[in-house]
Amino acid sequence: MARKTLPLSKVYGLLEPGPVVLLATARHGKANIMTLSWHTMMEFEPPLVGCVISDRNHSFRTLKATGECVIGIPSVEIAGKVVGCGNTSGAETDKFAKFGLTPVPAARVGAPLIAECFANLECRLADTGMVSKYGFFVLEVVCAWIDASVKNPRTIHHSGNDNFMVAGERIKLRSKMK
Amino acid sequence: MARKTLPLSKVYGLLEPGPVVLLATARHGKANIMTLSWHTMMEFEPPLVGCVISDRNHSFRTLKATGECVIGIPSVEIAGKVVGCGNTSGAETDKFAKFGLTPVPAARVGAPLIAECFANLECRLADTGMVSKYGFFVLEVVCAWIDASVKNPRTIHHSGNDNFMVAGERIKLRSKMK
Repeated sequence: MARKTLPLSKVYGLLEPGPVVLLATARHGKANIMTLSWHTMMEFEPPLVGCVISDRNHSFRTLKATGECVIGIPSVEIAGKVVGCGNTSGAETDKFAKFGLTPVPAARVGAPLIAECFANLECRLADTGMVSKYGFFVLEVVCAWIDASVKNPRTIHHSGNDNFMVAGERIKLRSKMK
Repeated sequence: MARKTLPLSKVYGLLEPGPVVLLATARHGKANIMTLSWHTMMEFEPPLVGCVISDRNHSFRTLKATGECVIGIPSVEIAGKVVGCGNTSGAETDKFAKFGLTPVPAARVGAPLIAECFANLECRLADTGMVSKYGFFVLEVVCAWIDASVKNPRTIHHSGNDNFMVAGERIKLRSKMK
Protein backbone atom coordinates (compact mmCIF):
# COMPACT_ATOMS: atom_id res chain seq x y z
CA MET A 1 0.00 0.00 0.00
CA ALA A 2 1.46 3.33 -1.07
CA ARG A 3 -1.46 5.70 -0.53
CA LYS A 4 -0.96 9.15 -1.98
CA THR A 5 -3.22 11.99 -3.00
CA LEU A 6 -4.37 12.22 -6.59
CA PRO A 7 -4.89 15.65 -8.23
CA LEU A 8 -8.61 16.37 -8.32
CA SER A 9 -8.36 17.02 -12.08
CA LYS A 10 -7.65 13.30 -12.59
CA VAL A 11 -10.56 11.89 -10.64
CA TYR A 12 -12.85 11.59 -13.68
CA GLY A 13 -10.60 8.93 -15.22
CA LEU A 14 -11.31 6.65 -12.26
CA LEU A 15 -15.09 6.84 -12.37
CA GLU A 16 -16.04 7.19 -16.02
CA PRO A 17 -15.20 3.58 -16.99
CA GLY A 18 -18.14 2.62 -14.73
CA PRO A 19 -16.68 0.47 -11.94
CA VAL A 20 -18.77 -0.97 -9.13
CA VAL A 21 -17.92 1.21 -6.13
CA LEU A 22 -18.28 1.07 -2.37
CA LEU A 23 -19.77 4.04 -0.57
CA ALA A 24 -18.76 4.51 3.06
CA THR A 25 -20.63 6.69 5.53
CA ALA A 26 -20.38 7.17 9.31
CA ARG A 27 -22.70 8.50 12.00
CA HIS A 28 -22.75 8.32 15.78
CA GLY A 29 -19.47 6.42 15.72
CA LYS A 30 -20.76 3.67 13.39
CA ALA A 31 -19.38 3.30 9.88
CA ASN A 32 -21.29 1.59 7.10
CA ILE A 33 -20.70 0.57 3.47
CA MET A 34 -22.96 0.07 0.49
CA THR A 35 -22.27 -1.16 -3.04
CA LEU A 36 -23.43 0.77 -6.07
CA SER A 37 -23.06 1.02 -9.84
CA TRP A 38 -25.38 3.91 -10.63
CA HIS A 39 -22.99 6.83 -10.73
CA THR A 40 -21.69 9.33 -13.27
CA MET A 41 -19.16 12.12 -13.45
CA MET A 42 -20.86 15.52 -13.76
CA GLU A 43 -17.96 18.01 -13.76
CA PHE A 44 -14.18 17.75 -14.12
CA GLU A 45 -12.88 20.16 -11.47
CA PRO A 46 -13.84 20.45 -8.79
CA PRO A 47 -15.04 16.92 -9.56
CA LEU A 48 -18.77 16.41 -9.20
CA VAL A 49 -20.19 12.89 -9.06
CA GLY A 50 -23.87 12.03 -9.28
CA CYS A 51 -25.08 8.79 -7.75
CA VAL A 52 -28.42 7.12 -7.19
CA ILE A 53 -29.10 5.68 -3.73
CA SER A 54 -32.49 4.20 -3.00
CA ASP A 55 -34.20 5.36 0.20
CA ARG A 56 -34.45 1.66 1.06
CA ASN A 57 -30.71 1.72 1.79
CA HIS A 58 -29.46 2.46 5.30
CA SER A 59 -26.79 4.72 3.73
CA PHE A 60 -29.47 7.00 2.25
CA ARG A 61 -30.35 8.42 5.67
CA THR A 62 -26.76 8.60 6.88
CA LEU A 63 -25.58 10.47 3.80
CA LYS A 64 -28.51 12.88 3.99
CA ALA A 65 -27.90 13.54 7.68
CA THR A 66 -24.10 13.92 7.60
CA GLY A 67 -23.58 15.28 4.07
CA GLU A 68 -20.35 13.28 3.79
CA CYS A 69 -19.18 9.99 2.33
CA VAL A 70 -16.21 8.21 0.80
CA ILE A 71 -16.38 6.45 -2.55
CA GLY A 72 -13.95 3.52 -2.57
CA ILE A 73 -13.06 1.80 -5.82
CA PRO A 74 -12.37 -1.92 -5.44
CA SER A 75 -10.65 -4.31 -7.83
CA VAL A 76 -11.54 -7.93 -8.57
CA GLU A 77 -9.31 -9.26 -5.76
CA ILE A 78 -12.02 -8.22 -3.25
CA ALA A 79 -15.06 -8.86 -5.48
CA GLY A 80 -16.52 -11.28 -2.94
CA LYS A 81 -16.47 -8.62 -0.22
CA VAL A 82 -17.98 -6.06 -2.60
CA VAL A 83 -20.91 -8.29 -3.47
CA GLY A 84 -21.25 -9.22 0.20
CA CYS A 85 -21.68 -5.54 1.06
CA GLY A 86 -24.36 -5.32 -1.63
CA ASN A 87 -26.24 -8.34 -0.28
CA THR A 88 -26.52 -7.19 3.36
CA SER A 89 -27.99 -4.18 5.18
CA GLY A 90 -26.08 -1.84 7.45
CA ALA A 91 -29.18 -1.68 9.63
CA GLU A 92 -28.28 -5.13 11.01
CA THR A 93 -24.66 -5.72 10.05
CA ASP A 94 -21.28 -4.12 10.79
CA LYS A 95 -20.04 -4.67 7.24
CA PHE A 96 -16.43 -3.60 7.93
CA ALA A 97 -16.21 -6.36 10.56
CA LYS A 98 -18.23 -8.96 8.67
CA PHE A 99 -16.28 -8.65 5.41
CA GLY A 100 -12.83 -7.93 6.83
CA LEU A 101 -12.61 -4.40 5.45
CA THR A 102 -10.47 -1.81 7.21
CA PRO A 103 -11.72 1.73 7.94
CA VAL A 104 -8.99 4.39 7.78
CA PRO A 105 -9.59 7.98 8.94
CA ALA A 106 -10.13 10.38 6.04
CA ALA A 107 -8.52 13.82 5.79
CA ARG A 108 -11.55 16.01 5.10
CA VAL A 109 -14.71 14.07 5.95
CA GLY A 110 -16.07 12.01 8.82
CA ALA A 111 -16.65 8.86 6.76
CA PRO A 112 -13.71 6.44 6.56
CA LEU A 113 -11.51 5.45 3.64
CA ILE A 114 -11.58 1.72 2.88
CA ALA A 115 -8.01 0.43 3.04
CA GLU A 116 -8.65 -2.49 0.67
CA CYS A 117 -9.77 -0.17 -2.18
CA PHE A 118 -7.08 1.03 -4.62
CA ALA A 119 -8.71 4.48 -4.77
CA ASN A 120 -10.77 6.46 -2.26
CA LEU A 121 -12.63 9.70 -2.94
CA GLU A 122 -13.65 11.89 0.00
CA CYS A 123 -16.96 13.54 -0.89
CA ARG A 124 -19.28 16.23 0.41
CA LEU A 125 -22.93 16.46 -0.57
CA ALA A 126 -23.21 19.36 -3.04
CA ASP A 127 -26.81 19.29 -4.29
CA THR A 128 -29.90 17.50 -2.96
CA GLY A 129 -32.32 18.91 -5.55
CA MET A 130 -32.98 15.50 -7.12
CA VAL A 131 -32.84 13.36 -3.98
CA SER A 132 -36.53 13.21 -3.21
CA LYS A 133 -37.56 12.44 -6.81
CA TYR A 134 -34.78 10.05 -7.92
CA GLY A 135 -32.53 9.41 -4.89
CA PHE A 136 -29.93 11.23 -6.98
CA PHE A 137 -27.17 12.82 -4.87
CA VAL A 138 -24.66 15.27 -6.37
CA LEU A 139 -21.34 14.91 -4.52
CA GLU A 140 -18.21 17.04 -4.69
CA VAL A 141 -14.91 15.17 -4.39
CA VAL A 142 -12.82 17.19 -1.92
CA CYS A 143 -9.82 14.85 -1.58
CA ALA A 144 -8.76 11.82 -3.65
CA TRP A 145 -6.37 8.99 -2.75
CA ILE A 146 -4.84 6.26 -4.86
CA ASP A 147 -2.59 3.33 -4.08
CA ALA A 148 0.39 4.18 -6.27
CA SER A 149 1.57 0.57 -6.18
CA VAL A 150 -1.44 -0.63 -8.19
CA LYS A 151 -1.03 -0.43 -11.97
CA ASN A 152 -4.00 -1.12 -14.26
CA PRO A 153 -6.41 -2.18 -11.49
CA ARG A 154 -8.89 -4.83 -12.65
CA THR A 155 -12.10 -3.05 -11.68
CA ILE A 156 -15.40 -4.90 -11.68
CA HIS A 157 -18.46 -3.79 -13.65
CA HIS A 158 -21.98 -4.99 -13.02
CA SER A 159 -24.00 -6.27 -16.00
CA GLY A 160 -27.18 -7.19 -14.13
CA ASN A 161 -28.13 -9.95 -11.69
CA ASP A 162 -25.15 -12.22 -10.93
CA ASN A 163 -23.13 -11.06 -13.95
CA PHE A 164 -19.99 -8.97 -13.76
CA MET A 165 -17.33 -7.91 -16.24
CA VAL A 166 -13.72 -7.47 -15.22
CA ALA A 167 -11.66 -4.68 -16.75
CA GLY A 168 -9.64 -6.08 -19.65
CA GLU A 169 -7.10 -4.83 -22.14
CA ARG A 170 -5.96 -1.17 -22.04
CA ILE A 171 -5.77 0.59 -25.39
CA LYS A 172 -4.83 4.08 -26.56
CA LEU A 173 -6.92 6.02 -29.07
CA ARG A 174 -6.08 9.56 -29.98
CA SER A 175 -8.92 11.40 -28.27
CA LYS A 176 -9.74 15.06 -27.98
CA MET A 177 -12.26 14.06 -25.31
CA LYS A 178 -10.77 15.17 -22.03
CA MET B 1 -27.13 -8.56 -37.68
CA ALA B 2 -30.12 -10.05 -35.89
CA ARG B 3 -31.76 -6.99 -34.38
CA LYS B 4 -34.53 -7.76 -31.91
CA THR B 5 -36.22 -5.88 -29.11
CA LEU B 6 -34.93 -6.29 -25.58
CA PRO B 7 -37.38 -6.20 -22.64
CA LEU B 8 -37.11 -2.77 -20.99
CA SER B 9 -36.48 -4.46 -17.63
CA LYS B 10 -33.09 -5.65 -18.95
CA VAL B 11 -31.79 -2.31 -20.20
CA TYR B 12 -29.94 -1.48 -16.96
CA GLY B 13 -27.52 -4.38 -17.50
CA LEU B 14 -26.29 -2.74 -20.70
CA LEU B 15 -25.52 0.69 -19.23
CA GLU B 16 -24.37 0.09 -15.67
CA PRO B 17 -20.96 -1.36 -16.61
CA GLY B 18 -20.16 2.14 -17.90
CA PRO B 19 -19.51 1.78 -21.66
CA VAL B 20 -18.67 4.70 -23.91
CA VAL B 21 -21.88 5.32 -25.85
CA LEU B 22 -22.96 7.16 -28.96
CA LEU B 23 -25.93 9.50 -28.77
CA ALA B 24 -27.84 10.11 -31.99
CA THR B 25 -30.21 12.99 -32.56
CA ALA B 26 -31.98 14.35 -35.66
CA ARG B 27 -33.58 17.66 -36.58
CA HIS B 28 -34.71 19.25 -39.85
CA GLY B 29 -33.72 16.05 -41.69
CA LYS B 30 -30.13 16.06 -40.41
CA ALA B 31 -28.92 13.35 -38.06
CA ASN B 32 -25.96 13.82 -35.73
CA ILE B 33 -23.93 11.70 -33.30
CA MET B 34 -21.91 12.51 -30.19
CA THR B 35 -19.76 10.33 -27.95
CA LEU B 36 -20.20 10.31 -24.18
CA SER B 37 -19.21 8.47 -21.03
CA TRP B 38 -21.01 10.49 -18.39
CA HIS B 39 -24.22 8.52 -17.93
CA THR B 40 -25.91 6.54 -15.21
CA MET B 41 -28.99 4.40 -14.78
CA MET B 42 -31.58 6.07 -12.54
CA GLU B 43 -34.52 3.66 -12.53
CA PHE B 44 -35.06 0.05 -13.60
CA GLU B 45 -38.48 0.15 -15.30
CA PRO B 46 -39.43 2.14 -17.13
CA PRO B 47 -35.67 2.61 -17.52
CA LEU B 48 -34.45 6.11 -16.74
CA VAL B 49 -30.96 7.16 -17.82
CA GLY B 50 -29.23 10.35 -16.72
CA CYS B 51 -26.51 11.80 -18.93
CA VAL B 52 -24.40 14.92 -18.95
CA ILE B 53 -24.12 16.85 -22.22
CA SER B 54 -22.22 20.11 -22.30
CA ASP B 55 -23.94 23.06 -23.92
CA ARG B 56 -20.82 23.34 -26.10
CA ASN B 57 -22.02 20.21 -27.96
CA HIS B 58 -24.18 20.57 -31.06
CA SER B 59 -26.33 17.70 -29.72
CA PHE B 60 -27.27 19.73 -26.63
CA ARG B 61 -29.52 22.05 -28.64
CA THR B 62 -30.94 19.28 -30.82
CA LEU B 63 -31.87 17.11 -27.84
CA LYS B 64 -33.44 20.04 -26.02
CA ALA B 65 -35.43 21.05 -29.10
CA THR B 66 -36.65 17.60 -30.17
CA GLY B 67 -36.82 15.80 -26.81
CA GLU B 68 -35.68 12.58 -28.49
CA CYS B 69 -32.46 10.65 -29.00
CA VAL B 70 -31.04 7.17 -29.44
CA ILE B 71 -28.24 5.81 -27.26
CA GLY B 72 -26.16 3.35 -29.27
CA ILE B 73 -23.67 1.08 -27.53
CA PRO B 74 -20.58 0.30 -29.60
CA SER B 75 -17.98 -2.43 -29.14
CA VAL B 76 -14.24 -2.23 -29.70
CA GLU B 77 -14.52 -3.22 -33.37
CA ILE B 78 -15.69 0.33 -34.15
CA ALA B 79 -13.62 2.15 -31.50
CA GLY B 80 -11.94 4.32 -34.12
CA LYS B 81 -15.31 5.59 -35.37
CA VAL B 82 -16.46 6.21 -31.79
CA VAL B 83 -13.44 8.35 -30.95
CA GLY B 84 -13.75 10.07 -34.32
CA CYS B 85 -17.31 11.11 -33.42
CA GLY B 86 -15.95 12.48 -30.12
CA ASN B 87 -13.23 14.48 -31.85
CA THR B 88 -15.45 16.32 -34.36
CA SER B 89 -18.44 18.64 -34.19
CA GLY B 90 -21.81 18.03 -35.79
CA ALA B 91 -21.96 21.75 -36.52
CA GLU B 92 -19.53 21.20 -39.42
CA THR B 93 -19.52 17.46 -40.08
CA ASP B 94 -22.02 14.82 -41.20
CA LYS B 95 -20.62 12.20 -38.84
CA PHE B 96 -22.68 9.30 -40.23
CA ALA B 97 -21.12 9.93 -43.65
CA LYS B 98 -17.63 10.78 -42.44
CA PHE B 99 -17.26 7.70 -40.21
CA GLY B 100 -19.24 5.22 -42.28
CA LEU B 101 -22.00 4.74 -39.75
CA THR B 102 -25.48 3.74 -40.91
CA PRO B 103 -28.64 5.44 -39.65
CA VAL B 104 -31.66 3.13 -39.38
CA PRO B 105 -35.18 4.44 -38.68
CA ALA B 106 -36.23 3.95 -35.05
CA ALA B 107 -39.64 2.66 -34.00
CA ARG B 108 -40.70 5.32 -31.51
CA VAL B 109 -38.48 8.39 -31.91
CA GLY B 110 -37.26 10.62 -34.73
CA ALA B 111 -33.55 10.05 -34.06
CA PRO B 112 -31.99 7.09 -35.89
CA LEU B 113 -30.62 3.81 -34.58
CA ILE B 114 -26.94 3.26 -35.42
CA ALA B 115 -26.66 -0.03 -37.32
CA GLU B 116 -23.03 -0.65 -36.27
CA CYS B 117 -23.91 -0.61 -32.53
CA PHE B 118 -24.79 -3.94 -30.90
CA ALA B 119 -27.48 -2.22 -28.80
CA ASN B 120 -29.66 0.84 -29.42
CA LEU B 121 -31.95 2.51 -26.90
CA GLU B 122 -34.69 4.83 -28.13
CA CYS B 123 -35.11 7.61 -25.57
CA ARG B 124 -37.46 10.48 -24.78
CA LEU B 125 -36.46 13.40 -22.62
CA ALA B 126 -38.16 12.91 -19.25
CA ASP B 127 -36.84 15.68 -16.99
CA THR B 128 -34.94 18.88 -17.79
CA GLY B 129 -34.75 20.15 -14.21
CA MET B 130 -30.96 19.81 -14.02
CA VAL B 131 -30.12 20.79 -17.61
CA SER B 132 -29.35 24.45 -17.06
CA LYS B 133 -27.20 23.83 -13.96
CA TYR B 134 -25.32 20.66 -14.96
CA GLY B 135 -26.27 19.80 -18.56
CA PHE B 136 -27.87 16.73 -16.94
CA PHE B 137 -30.68 15.21 -19.01
CA VAL B 138 -32.98 12.52 -17.60
CA LEU B 139 -34.08 10.21 -20.45
CA GLU B 140 -36.69 7.48 -20.50
CA VAL B 141 -35.90 4.45 -22.65
CA VAL B 142 -39.06 3.71 -24.63
CA CYS B 143 -37.76 0.94 -26.90
CA ALA B 144 -34.55 -1.13 -26.76
CA TRP B 145 -32.85 -3.17 -29.48
CA ILE B 146 -30.00 -5.64 -29.35
CA ASP B 147 -28.13 -7.61 -31.96
CA ALA B 148 -28.87 -11.13 -30.78
CA SER B 149 -25.91 -12.48 -32.74
CA VAL B 150 -23.40 -10.66 -30.49
CA LYS B 151 -22.38 -12.55 -27.35
CA ASN B 152 -20.27 -10.82 -24.69
CA PRO B 153 -19.66 -7.60 -26.63
CA ARG B 154 -16.28 -6.05 -25.88
CA THR B 155 -17.47 -2.59 -24.88
CA ILE B 156 -15.00 0.26 -24.52
CA HIS B 157 -14.62 2.33 -21.35
CA HIS B 158 -12.90 5.70 -21.17
CA SER B 159 -10.24 6.21 -18.48
CA GLY B 160 -9.27 9.78 -19.32
CA ASN B 161 -7.39 11.42 -22.20
CA ASP B 162 -6.29 8.83 -24.78
CA ASN B 163 -6.80 5.86 -22.45
CA PHE B 164 -9.51 3.26 -22.85
CA MET B 165 -10.23 -0.08 -21.22
CA VAL B 166 -11.86 -2.91 -23.15
CA ALA B 167 -14.35 -5.17 -21.41
CA GLY B 168 -12.57 -8.30 -20.20
CA GLU B 169 -13.45 -11.54 -18.47
CA ARG B 170 -17.07 -12.25 -17.46
CA ILE B 171 -17.58 -13.62 -13.96
CA LYS B 172 -20.58 -14.66 -11.86
CA LEU B 173 -20.98 -13.62 -8.25
CA ARG B 174 -24.09 -14.46 -6.30
CA SER B 175 -25.67 -11.04 -6.05
CA LYS B 176 -28.92 -9.83 -4.52
CA MET B 177 -28.31 -6.55 -6.32
CA LYS B 178 -30.79 -6.49 -9.15
